[in-house]
Amino acid sequence: MDPTSLRTLVEQVASGACTPDDAVRQLRRLPYADLGFARVDHHRDLRQGMPEAVFGPGKTPEQCAAIVVELLETGAGPVLLTRATEAQTKATAAAANARGHGSGEIASTGASCTMSFRPAPARTGTIVVITAGTSDLPVATECTSVLGALGFSPTLLADCGVAGLHRLLTEVDVLAMAEAVVVIAGMEGALASVVGGLTPAPVVAVPTSTGYGSSFEGVTALLAMLSSCASGVTVVGIDNGFGAACAVARLLP
Amino acid sequence: MDPTSLRTLVEQVASGACTPDDAVRQLRRLPYADLGFARVDHHRDLRQGMPEAVFGPGKTPEQCAAIVVELLETGAGPVLLTRATEAQTKATAAAANARGHGSGEIASTGASCTMSFRPAPARTGTIVVITAGTSDLPVATECTSVLGALGFSPTLLADCGVAGLHRLLTEVDVLAMAEAVVVIAGMEGALASVVGGLTPAPVVAVPTSTGYGSSFEGVTALLAMLSSCASGVTVVGIDNGFGAACAVARLLP
Amino acid sequence: MDPTSLRTLVEQVASGACTPDDAVRQLRRLPYADLGFARVDHHRDLRQGMPEAVFGPGKTPEQCAAIVVELLETGAGPVLLTRATEAQTKATAAAANARGHGSGEIASTGASCTMSFRPAPARTGTIVVITAGTSDLPVATECTSVLGALGFSPTLLADCGVAGLHRLLTEVDVLAMAEAVVVIAGMEGALASVVGGLTPAPVVAVPTSTGYGSSFEGVTALLAMLSSCASGVTVVGIDNGFGAACAVARLLP
Amino acid sequence: MDPTSLRTLVEQVASGACTPDDAVRQLRRLPYADLGFARVDHHRDLRQGMPEAVFGPGKTPEQCAAIVVELLETGAGPVLLTRATEAQTKATAAAANARGHGSGEIASTGASCTMSFRPAPARTGTIVVITAGTSDLPVATECTSVLGALGFSPTLLADCGVAGLHRLLTEVDVLAMAEAVVVIAGMEGALASVVGGLTPAPVVAVPTSTGYGSSFEGVTALLAMLSSCASGVTVVGIDNGFGAACAVARLLP
Amino acid sequence: MDPTSLRTLVEQVASGACTPDDAVRQLRRLPYADLGFARVDHHRDLRQGMPEAVFGPGKTPEQCAAIVVELLETGAGPVLLTRATEAQTKATAAAANARGHGSGEIASTGASCTMSFRPAPARTGTIVVITAGTSDLPVATECTSVLGALGFSPTLLADCGVAGLHRLLTEVDVLAMAEAVVVIAGMEGALASVVGGLTPAPVVAVPTSTGYGSSFEGVTALLAMLSSCASGVTVVGIDNGFGAACAVARLLP
Amino acid sequence: MDPTSLRTLVEQVASGACTPDDAVRQLRRLPYADLGFARVDHHRDLRQGMPEAVFGPGKTPEQCAAIVVELLETGAGPVLLTRATEAQTKATAAAANARGHGSGEIASTGASCTMSFRPAPARTGTIVVITAGTSDLPVATECTSVLGALGFSPTLLADCGVAGLHRLLTEVDVLAMAEAVVVIAGMEGALASVVGGLTPAPVVAVPTSTGYGSSFEGVTALLAMLSSCASGVTVVGIDNGFGAACAVARLLP
Amino acid sequence: MDPTSLRTLVEQVASGACTPDDAVRQLRRLPYADLGFARVDHHRDLRQGMPEAVFGPGKTPEQCAAIVVELLETGAGPVLLTRATEAQTKATAAAANARGHGSGEIASTGASCTMSFRPAPARTGTIVVITAGTSDLPVATECTSVLGALGFSPTLLADCGVAGLHRLLTEVDVLAMAEAVVVIAGMEGALASVVGGLTPAPVVAVPTSTGYGSSFEGVTALLAMLSSCASGVTVVGIDNGFGAACAVARLLP
Amino acid sequence: MDPTSLRTLVEQVASGACTPDDAVRQLRRLPYADLGFARVDHHRDLRQGMPEAVFGPGKTPEQCAAIVVELLETGAGPVLLTRATEAQTKATAAAANARGHGSGEIASTGASCTMSFRPAPARTGTIVVITAGTSDLPVATECTSVLGALGFSPTLLADCGVAGLHRLLTEVDVLAMAEAVVVIAGMEGALASVVGGLTPAPVVAVPTSTGYGSSFEGVTALLAMLSSCASGVTVVGIDNGFGAACAVARLLP
Repeated sequence: MDPTSLRTLVEQVASGACTPDDAVRQLRRLPYADLGFARVDHHRDLRQGMPEAVFGPGKTPEQCAAIVVELLETGAGPVLLTRATEAQTKATAAAANARGHGSGEIASTGASCTMSFRPAPARTGTIVVITAGTSDLPVATECTSVLGALGFSPTLLADCGVAGLHRLLTEVDVLAMAEAVVVIAGMEGALASVVGGLTPAPVVAVPTSTGYGSSFEGVTALLAMLSSCASGVTVVGIDNGFGAACAVARLLP
Repeated sequence: MDPTSLRTLVEQVASGACTPDDAVRQLRRLPYADLGFARVDHHRDLRQGMPEAVFGPGKTPEQCAAIVVELLETGAGPVLLTRATEAQTKATAAAANARGHGSGEIASTGASCTMSFRPAPARTGTIVVITAGTSDLPVATECTSVLGALGFSPTLLADCGVAGLHRLLTEVDVLAMAEAVVVIAGMEGALASVVGGLTPAPVVAVPTSTGYGSSFEGVTALLAMLSSCASGVTVVGIDNGFGAACAVARLLP
Repeated sequence: MDPTSLRTLVEQVASGACTPDDAVRQLRRLPYADLGFARVDHHRDLRQGMPEAVFGPGKTPEQCAAIVVELLETGAGPVLLTRATEAQTKATAAAANARGHGSGEIASTGASCTMSFRPAPARTGTIVVITAGTSDLPVATECTSVLGALGFSPTLLADCGVAGLHRLLTEVDVLAMAEAVVVIAGMEGALASVVGGLTPAPVVAVPTSTGYGSSFEGVTALLAMLSSCASGVTVVGIDNGFGAACAVARLLP
Repeated sequence: MDPTSLRTLVEQVASGACTPDDAVRQLRRLPYADLGFARVDHHRDLRQGMPEAVFGPGKTPEQCAAIVVELLETGAGPVLLTRATEAQTKATAAAANARGHGSGEIASTGASCTMSFRPAPARTGTIVVITAGTSDLPVATECTSVLGALGFSPTLLADCGVAGLHRLLTEVDVLAMAEAVVVIAGMEGALASVVGGLTPAPVVAVPTSTGYGSSFEGVTALLAMLSSCASGVTVVGIDNGFGAACAVARLLP
Repeated sequence: MDPTSLRTLVEQVASGACTPDDAVRQLRRLPYADLGFARVDHHRDLRQGMPEAVFGPGKTPEQCAAIVVELLETGAGPVLLTRATEAQTKATAAAANARGHGSGEIASTGASCTMSFRPAPARTGTIVVITAGTSDLPVATECTSVLGALGFSPTLLADCGVAGLHRLLTEVDVLAMAEAVVVIAGMEGALASVVGGLTPAPVVAVPTSTGYGSSFEGVTALLAMLSSCASGVTVVGIDNGFGAACAVARLLP
Repeated sequence: MDPTSLRTLVEQVASGACTPDDAVRQLRRLPYADLGFARVDHHRDLRQGMPEAVFGPGKTPEQCAAIVVELLETGAGPVLLTRATEAQTKATAAAANARGHGSGEIASTGASCTMSFRPAPARTGTIVVITAGTSDLPVATECTSVLGALGFSPTLLADCGVAGLHRLLTEVDVLAMAEAVVVIAGMEGALASVVGGLTPAPVVAVPTSTGYGSSFEGVTALLAMLSSCASGVTVVGIDNGFGAACAVARLLP
Repeated sequence: MDPTSLRTLVEQVASGACTPDDAVRQLRRLPYADLGFARVDHHRDLRQGMPEAVFGPGKTPEQCAAIVVELLETGAGPVLLTRATEAQTKATAAAANARGHGSGEIASTGASCTMSFRPAPARTGTIVVITAGTSDLPVATECTSVLGALGFSPTLLADCGVAGLHRLLTEVDVLAMAEAVVVIAGMEGALASVVGGLTPAPVVAVPTSTGYGSSFEGVTALLAMLSSCASGVTVVGIDNGFGAACAVARLLP
Repeated sequence: MDPTSLRTLVEQVASGACTPDDAVRQLRRLPYADLGFARVDHHRDLRQGMPEAVFGPGKTPEQCAAIVVELLETGAGPVLLTRATEAQTKATAAAANARGHGSGEIASTGASCTMSFRPAPARTGTIVVITAGTSDLPVATECTSVLGALGFSPTLLADCGVAGLHRLLTEVDVLAMAEAVVVIAGMEGALASVVGGLTPAPVVAVPTSTGYGSSFEGVTALLAMLSSCASGVTVVGIDNGFGAACAVARLLP
């Protein structure tokens, strides 16, 4: 519904190349496919710069499979299924395979996994994904697997929590040269503030639900990251490695 | 303490150009000035790509004035005083004026204001700051005044809330062509999701404490923005127009 | 206990057609059946315009079966069992069948289901039930199955979330002509505000516990819907598709 | 942007009655006036069945006055200014008066007030607004003054809280015959459930911030109303008498 | 509407001593006076064992005065005005005085006060009101002034917090012999548990909004008292000295 | 450590009937038995008027059995094991049986159960336990089984929720004549306020974790009950039927 | 009531040096003075190792003055009045002065102040009080003034927040050699974790209510500090500089 | 990176004993081992006075085993694995055993366990760990097993809750003579305040998730402990027996 195609369409009507009825039909024909239970968005890539990802929870394996196949059949870019169960990935792999799209890549993200098909061509962009602890790795994996599907090759720095500051300080140069940094931390989420103070790059913080004591399933880290004393740190939802990857994809050229 | 200058220093010691005592002194000489009540950070610009901003609340007018003057005297970039009271801006203007730095620019941000000195040279970067309602303008002003001090010329689109979708749809092209978008909204914060679906640019969402009914001083908008169904939207703290401006400064080239 | 029947009763006493003792007995005879563990309300239909629904959780299968049978035996309208487990529906179907009432209709609503007996005759009323995502379908099913039992034939529009606004805009006419709209959304619940701005019909919003990131089991969507910038949107409890259906039944003629 | 006018426009282009350039311009010309700080929505009435209300908080008196005058000048229906301070109503009355629109009606709603201009012609519809206590009257006043501006003549039943059930039972007939009921209650908000059980009419519940003990500024009543055991009660935000009035306006014919 | 008077009434109709019309009128004549903004409950004493107390907040001084006078004129028991401002007590004293009811007793309860008229005759019952700190005295005063108006003479034990356990242990006998104990404490509210373990009497705990650190305006004490490890401690709302007094009045003979 | 026995002891020392060493030993000999993992309190009955109840969660079956046996062996009153699992009751029954104390009474309270040994002799006291719904019965059972163990014979009124007010009104006389009322309700907990307005008896309210929509595991009912508009209602913790029974035992003679 | 003095007393009775009546009187004579509204604890110093501090809020100036004078008259150690208003300090200074105790020391802690009389003799102990920002200084002042009254001479390191890590790293030696460290920080409270990782000393963290964005009056910092990834950091309540000072006093020899 | 070794290194460069390249390499060589998924910190003991403990949750059994072995191989002090599952302890025991480090000690802490290798030599320090109930024992076990691994021999006082105050009072001497006290309590956590008032020792309070009624998984006890009326009590996170043990290790000499 952008001005250029609107003008083209209107000119076609003006020239008789298109009847008024056809014009109305075209103007109302929207770039999605209605599967009944889902409206598959074929132009998200154009509009948002990234393909539609299928969010697994609450969908039946059959619904996952049908949406993924629809996206594979119609488009050309990467297709993602996130937070998927084993039943969902199995059904999807079978359906995709049956249509000649292969059975996809699966990355385990703890209790669920990320499945991807048809990764994008390699893109430049120095991305660092850094975690406070080993327990944050499942969220980091969701983030790096989505970044990988989008064509990026992020560097993963695991277990750099601030209680052992030297583990982080040794990576200062890596952080200073990054074009984008994703900080993944649970507990008190202090790593976001410290990293935010060490790099001029955009920093996307992901609170995780990891933690001892009073971390309240990630709420503590979430609030801490939102209150960071390092200016310009931004935050996505708890355990949302997928969202952080998308945020990075938006800000890199 | 970066590797290059470290190596240089060590080589100077090796060549005798620098005594060991001097080297230790240099290695420990840190780039800040200790005012007793504050440690003014003179290298934040180099490290984070933006000058240190002085956060007004909790500081006496005299402390504000002293810190701002210290930053003006020692550095060369923009200097900001945020969330300042009238007493703080008056004391700061007087002190800065007395040292020949002018009396700064003041932008009202509701109950407090943003004061800036020595704005950076103009930078490129198509930034759109969009608000859901007129009541969100004070936060937008904090954001645009900080962006202005950093050299940017953002476009402000006010009062585009989703209850009157056509007010937003008319700006679709502006959003689609932006290099960065700051979405400022209170109440239910739905504007962030809708804008996130209309542009491929990075979107930084700022929840505001504006609202009727059950907006709980911005908590509702904050949670809504963190849960946005538009992939890759990132969030800063409630009413944090300053933070959004810094986030944008980090991600633009 | 309405004035008319009260007057009738008192006049019967005055005329001797009813003894004082009988009058007292009648005045105290309340329109419910006491099963010991439940007081089955046979006049809710008259009083509230809808039959009593049996809420499954916390009841034994035997209690569910007994209450449903009591309602089927005494009344004539639809009978509902909501949030039922398989054990509850099996026991109820068996008991109802044994008494000649059939084994009811079952609609799956995710982990539980809605069971209905003796649906009401068809009623007019253009009702649209719209969901933000496929994952919201179980709540939508609870809503549409209750509406169906009450005699309505709602239109279901699935997967119209605001991140792909065109999927919603194509349904603008359907929304504009509806007599009542139920909006079912998780995550940030923005769909309620956008729909509220597109239709003059009453809008009942149902937050769902679906969501990525920081949706906190539906609390985020709940708060967002209560703070909607679209005037006159009303809200029911989290995942309460049943409540939304009842609210619609109250407001349609 | 409705199909009919779209078709008309396209046909005009086809017939040469409209040039393509003009068509594009018309398609993009949206029904609002941009005041710079606000986008005044002149078609909300058509789209939502009610005029745009100006929400006072966060706006300067001058902004309030300018938006109200814009609405009075361009449209023909009622115009509302809600949650207004004395400074805002004074500025608005002066500006409206100067343009010949009178100085409006003001209803005190506690610390703020509702201002209305040009009330709609009288509409039918038996609306009951019922409060639990005298302390809930300011919210009731916001609701009844908005209903009045929209052309309704609601019945107010004050101080019918459930701790003195007979005060409520005497109004049972009034409730039973209403076409819509607004229940306004603070503290534990139990009135909504009791009223919901006594009437088949749609019930819109408004939690208020009134209360002794542990009412937490209305949160307790809000949660209680959302969890009401009376089926089909819907809820608006805390103290949102305006929202309840709009909800009623949506559901009456 | 109790059975006995119902039977009497019906028998009068049967015998012709009362016409049906009169009977209906009597059955509907409810024991309250409708002041328009308030329904003054004249039978609460009979029904609940205590007079209606007028809750000040949200009422105008004139409304307070009118309700209190109505209660004084019609009934014979004590009349209370709680959480009153100085303006409210002045208006009420003037109005009561003008009607010959005296100007009442006023007890300061911190920022507001409790006003009482016509205290009940002395009642027996050994009541102990115990506070954790001096800062809890305003709530204790609300409690003891209401108990006083109801005819009781409670013993006040101030400043017995558990950090100095011997201050409490010296009162063990007083606690052991009480017929009812009201424990009033802020901060962590531990006094309720300790007292609950030292007396077999009923213990009503009142959390107060007093406190250092993280008492969150009484929420901490409230939760602690609800979780008391001493069996059978009951709790009223935060700062609700009035409620505790009423609870005690209910349980004493 | 009461004054009388203290004086006796001191007099014995004065008279030489007791050596100083023995006196010190006696003064420090406390009425509990130390099992290592538990200190069994043998004088709680004297001090608090009720026996120590063993709270099951977090204890091993062996610990439960050992504590119960210790209480049975040493004391003479009722012994309770609450919130017990099947493993805990089995181990306890076996151990008690082996020592000749029988295998106790078990009452199912949903997922757990209450086990009691050696019920107290029958006590007078008209206690009404009333529930809003059938789903609240497990909590009611915990309450009535504890009351039964303490010697009371409470009346249970099930399923009297306020949405069908007539189910409650028919029990008005029962409520008015009670000496103590326990109100058990989930969802919005409105029953407590309505009952509190209908009886002069002490009312102990128990919020339950039952509920549709937004009852948040009982928090909604808890807050509502604490904010009850009926004066003098007191509250215990969520699902705490045991606590309510103990509270009633404290207040009855 | 310690064993030694108990034995002494009992031996005196045994030897006739003390009559039984006197013994009972002594055993019940507790080491506090009852002022009616307060029980002044004269033995807290012995029992807890620090004098009773008078908490200002909720007390009248006269009550503050009377309690402080009582403590000055009877004991010999330091006396503190915390969170005092100007009216409270004036009344206290006047009363103390009139009794020859001087007018005390006053340290401003933001909106309130700490007043101290008769500081303890100097004690050893290397204490570091470190703040994240200048805005945290009022809480630091409460802490250092209490430490000063207790005889300590703490080192204050102001404005060492983690966003400028080098400001902290320069103090690493000071932290490493401390015997106790108090970390005072608002916003995200990350300083506690970083300091906890740099020193083996006990670390007491104080969250402050300072902060931009989403610090929720200190709740964010509180939760973050409780979830610190640095092992063995302990926390006191929000803004509780007094509590941190007492905690340090407990742990130093 | 302490000044002394820095100076030594620089002097070696100055004297030619070390080349500049080597110096840079040494300056950057940090005392940890990078396992890819974890950075094992070999100098935490020097820096913090305690070994790095491996936090089980979120790690695979293989990761746990590898980290523990790395710590055992490189260092000499105690090694801890906390909150471990049976799979984790089995894998770790096998791996450690295979390398000749034995299979460690396991202490059950409820659903998980604490595993320790190579306990430190015995240290002096009179530590009391006191619990409110038997249900708090799993957290106490985590605390005592960590203290044991660090060389301490704490005294455990179980089941001393304040509802039976005499159970606590008998231990007054033990508390008064302790050098550090850990108070572990769920429900309302009152034990911390009472103990804090009875001992001059440092008190570390651990809230537990144990509890009846409204303890909200430990939040109630947490808040209560943070608001303790006993001065100088410090708090660690919910159920964090490990953290309390570390805090004690920090404060003992």
